[in-house]
Amino acid sequence: MPIEIPDVVVDRLPLYYRLLSRLDAEGRAVVSSQELGEELGVTPAQIRKDLSYFGRFGKQGRGYSVSRLQEELKAILGLDGRWKVIVIGIGRLGRAIASYPGFEGQGFDVIALYDAAPNLIGTEIEGQRVRDVTALEDDLKKTAVDIGVVAVPGEFAQDVVDTLVDAGVNAILNYTPNRVQTPPGVEVRHINPVLFLQSMTYHLRQRRSS
Amino acid sequence: MPIEIPDVVVDRLPLYYRLLSRLDAEGRAVVSSQELGEELGVTPAQIRKDLSYFGRFGKQGRGYSVSRLQEELKAILGLDGRWKVIVIGIGRLGRAIASYPGFEGQGFDVIALYDAAPNLIGTEIEGQRVRDVTALEDDLKKTAVDIGVVAVPGEFAQDVVDTLVDAGVNAILNYTPNRVQTPPGVEVRHINPVLFLQSMTYHLRQRRSS
Repeated sequence: MPIEIPDVVVDRLPLYYRLLSRLDAEGRAVVSSQELGEELGVTPAQIRKDLSYFGRFGKQGRGYSVSRLQEELKAILGLDGRWKVIVIGIGRLGRAIASYPGFEGQGFDVIALYDAAPNLIGTEIEGQRVRDVTALEDDLKKTAVDIGVVAVPGEFAQDVVDTLVDAGVNAILNYTPNRVQTPPGVEVRHINPVLFLQSMTYHLRQRRSS
Repeated sequence: MPIEIPDVVVDRLPLYYRLLSRLDAEGRAVVSSQELGEELGVTPAQIRKDLSYFGRFGKQGRGYSVSRLQEELKAILGLDGRWKVIVIGIGRLGRAIASYPGFEGQGFDVIALYDAAPNLIGTEIEGQRVRDVTALEDDLKKTAVDIGVVAVPGEFAQDVVDTLVDAGVNAILNYTPNRVQTPPGVEVRHINPVLFLQSMTYHLRQRRSS
């Protein structure tokens, strides 16, 4: 039975994994919760608590084994497998996403691109022929897809997400400014630059007023 | 003296603000921590704790005033002001960012675009003439900028960030896959789609194995 890990902790795991991969590449064998905390901007106590969800990796006073923790996180995050990704909406943003370096190396295979624009359909982008978005539903019946990346204009976001979810796609990365509704059990992440800017202006404001 | 609010809480504030704006637009006067929690996927106890950093907004058993909480968050997040944003790197991603709907309405003014490509410099994009990135340092001496959005190829990220930070830009939104180093006091947010995908594959893996 899987352990129930809080979402805020799950969202930090990729950061741990990335940091551990870097330390591993640098030849480091052991790392302390202190150092992990400094690198990630959280307290050592929080690090120990986060990692305790996965059992006892660290030995009191001796730190964590970099390679062992990295391997465990890799398995927990499902990064020892490969995941089929499609991108819907091949405007500027969609193309930028489709050509993002680092997907493949992390187990994410972009297997198809979709758009609604006649001048794009059938053209080749990043080595893939752009498919007509009207074929999406049928395509999903033939080939199971793990993750749908949605980069269509906001007003089409919900329709596309509905098609994906109805066809059994359980993970959606939504790049549109629009919120989308999904049934329970579907994972949605929303990349909205405004939210990132707002979390920084808090700090800028503190500085201005101090 | 500003209150010290944990970063994880600060990062949730824009989500609260967006939700409250929606509720306000729908004509809602009061909202409970229960409902806020359901909408945002955190526990009501966490909601009450988060909001307690800003004083007593809620009355026991009566919920929060939507408009009052929204106004307070707006001030806390600095969204009652305007912020000068520049975008460096006007490739596909940079253009998509520069044309993102919703910046202006949230107080973010994209005041300049920069690139290094001779065929882009001087062209007009989103109503702005693209400037030569070699002019960045001088431009920043003349016009203070609040936030730099970096969408250059990864290998140039650190150089651009150094130029921004040296010129007093204290907030960086980094869209490159590369990590950047900044001195203490500079806010950096990193938008890396791989990290979002990885936080979803955790859940997909749990489902596959259950």
